[in-house]
Amino acid sequence: MTTLSINGDRLWQSLMDLAEIGATPKGGNARLALTALDGQGRDLVVGWMREAGLSVTVDKVGNIFGRRAGRNNSLPPVMTGSHIDTQPTGGKFDGCYGVMAGLEVMRTLNERGVTTEAPLELAIWTNEEGSRFVPVMMGSGVFAGIFSAETALNARDADGKRVADELKAIGYAGDAEVGRPVGAYFEAHIEQGPVLEAEDKVIGVVTGSLGLRWYDVTVTGMEAHAGPTPMPLRKDALYGATFLMQEVVKIANDFAPHGRGTVGVVNIHPSSRNVIPGAVKFTVDLRHLDPERLGEMDARLRAACAALRDGTTTGTPLEVVVEDVQYFPPTPFAPGLIGHVREEAGARGYTHQDIVTGAGHDAVYLAGVAPTAMIFVPCKDGISHNEIEDARPEHLEAGANVLLGAMVAQANA
Amino acid sequence: MTTLSINGDRLWQSLMDLAEIGATPKGGNARLALTALDGQGRDLVVGWMREAGLSVTVDKVGNIFGRRAGRNNSLPPVMTGSHIDTQPTGGKFDGCYGVMAGLEVMRTLNERGVTTEAPLELAIWTNEEGSRFVPVMMGSGVFAGIFSAETALNARDADGKRVADELKAIGYAGDAEVGRPVGAYFEAHIEQGPVLEAEDKVIGVVTGSLGLRWYDVTVTGMEAHAGPTPMPLRKDALYGATFLMQEVVKIANDFAPHGRGTVGVVNIHPSSRNVIPGAVKFTVDLRHLDPERLGEMDARLRAACAALRDGTTTGTPLEVVVEDVQYFPPTPFAPGLIGHVREEAGARGYTHQDIVTGAGHDAVYLAGVAPTAMIFVPCKDGISHNEIEDARPEHLEAGANVLLGAMVAQANA
Repeated sequence: MTTLSINGDRLWQSLMDLAEIGATPKGGNARLALTALDGQGRDLVVGWMREAGLSVTVDKVGNIFGRRAGRNNSLPPVMTGSHIDTQPTGGKFDGCYGVMAGLEVMRTLNERGVTTEAPLELAIWTNEEGSRFVPVMMGSGVFAGIFSAETALNARDADGKRVADELKAIGYAGDAEVGRPVGAYFEAHIEQGPVLEAEDKVIGVVTGSLGLRWYDVTVTGMEAHAGPTPMPLRKDALYGATFLMQEVVKIANDFAPHGRGTVGVVNIHPSSRNVIPGAVKFTVDLRHLDPERLGEMDARLRAACAALRDGTTTGTPLEVVVEDVQYFPPTPFAPGLIGHVREEAGARGYTHQDIVTGAGHDAVYLAGVAPTAMIFVPCKDGISHNEIEDARPEHLEAGANVLLGAMVAQANA
Repeated sequence: MTTLSINGDRLWQSLMDLAEIGATPKGGNARLALTALDGQGRDLVVGWMREAGLSVTVDKVGNIFGRRAGRNNSLPPVMTGSHIDTQPTGGKFDGCYGVMAGLEVMRTLNERGVTTEAPLELAIWTNEEGSRFVPVMMGSGVFAGIFSAETALNARDADGKRVADELKAIGYAGDAEVGRPVGAYFEAHIEQGPVLEAEDKVIGVVTGSLGLRWYDVTVTGMEAHAGPTPMPLRKDALYGATFLMQEVVKIANDFAPHGRGTVGVVNIHPSSRNVIPGAVKFTVDLRHLDPERLGEMDARLRAACAALRDGTTTGTPLEVVVEDVQYFPPTPFAPGLIGHVREEAGARGYTHQDIVTGAGHDAVYLAGVAPTAMIFVPCKDGISHNEIEDARPEHLEAGANVLLGAMVAQANA
């Protein structure tokens, strides 16, 4: 099947045409979920889907599906997709690439007159970004049974507007029930990280999604004037907290290559230049591909907190409180589908490597209800969620070719 | 002279009477500089000064002096004093104690019919706290020639009101030029720190004031998504900055007992739970009693910044910028006056120890133009600039007795 190839110029042109809706002065895209602009974007892509002969349905939370019949339509569909909503200062490729790559698959199969055994579907998931409405990855989350359609439909934006009403306003409050059997799910996406560029690889064979644990840690000492308080009489909450902040990074390093550890937010009380910090609250983000390893990382963090609490770390006992904020378990992708992606990349002569996704994607939810895999292509400097997000046409073309080959292989398996 | 003793009950009562002006619900004081309440406080104390037979003058920046004649009035005065303005949520003792202790000295000498060789003076310095107008320690700063009367008089509060106008409004825009020869200056004060309480001592013999260096340090790396960015590809500004924050404390510990090192404020960009910090800006406060040691501490800090910058510290070079914000040189007090304080404390059987002041006081400016010493008494839990600031009557009495003895000894020397 490697002789089938998508049209890279047409793929690029479709991405650029879609990017004109909600284009920002700095070259990015602002097309927030269920705004009028999102409606225009949906209309444009649904028009293309119909032109490609797909039968379009919309479910109750606004997920759009374009179906291409197979020889045996009693089989569950081999699906691909992503999202076309963006961050407020988003780029042209995040999400849109996965949808346009799927559309190219359909267009190419039409041109070549190929019919697959199982039907194929192209999905556009509602509100992946979560910038306007939470929960994020809303449409795929309801589809996968993570939360209910009611939860999604009753979500409100900062102005109090409901998802249900906004769906109606743009004409995408569909009739179809949300969720049904899916034979396999593929999603092509820009990496949104620096690995492929650093390794000079064209295709990332995504083997799974990192699990994450989020915490809020509060270290409490005693605030006091920086001048009159000698060092031995201090209970400096920040000094103590720095050892935990460093431990977060050390833990991740000790669980290479799939460990991640980040402290992103630090708040100090009372936050005055000449006052010893009395309390420091900071966030911890730990990630790993393996649930057991993630559990070990969690234990290391708690042990470090205990050592700071009892005075082992600094000689000065401090109050340390660890609050669990969120847990997403690691999600391994389906070996069979991963194999298709790896084989297609190899057969087409694309440089490639296994990689994990640290960011959330609709595919991560789909993996709970269907065999799933993802295809990554490099993005410039690893930057995403930014108007300067960029990707090279030949990489996008390569990723879509791998998607094409993998979907056909799976649908005919 | 040790048979002379002040009246501790009267001292306490005067403090409590003054504290009724601007009393806060939580038992503190809010009598900001040059407000109507500060005017009422000044009127009350000036009335007491006149009752004690002192001749009162007011200078152009509102400093108040109550003079008690000596046998030889051509000698420069032996002066004591402090301030009666407070922080917005201040206590009853900070500043007020030094003024009331000085008043007690005058009252006691009157009762006992003692005349000193040199004249004595009691000063109330304008706007020591700096909560409403900067610069802080305004009245003593002009008196000592640190900045001009014009600078002080033209300072404005947050509402745009000028010191000159506010002085007139409360009737304390005096005629006297600011600054003149002073033979010696003593100031009694609550410690505003934990040392005397921890050491269970009644009197702190203050040998000098710590010098300080203030810095703003900015560490810049590269912000990136916490999920997709593997540890080896990160430039985590916070992780780098934590080594400098720890070094600030280590430097101070290495220059014990008079070294101090504090990071009080930390700001992170972009400050998001799942984004690796791209930049961290934090404050550094280094203090020492000895200018040479303070210079060595400064060099240590800059060396640590250089090691982080070139990658020696973490293996990842980061941009590190150090901005100098403020420098106050260390101020040793006058050995002769320190000796009077130590001898009086010993002769009266008060437990005592040498101590330094890490906080700013009017005495620190006066030390530039006159031999100066300070007397500290404990405050509860070392807490000041807070409505729960507290001190024990017997400690306040002891400190005032030491002040009495030291002033008389100096005035008759």
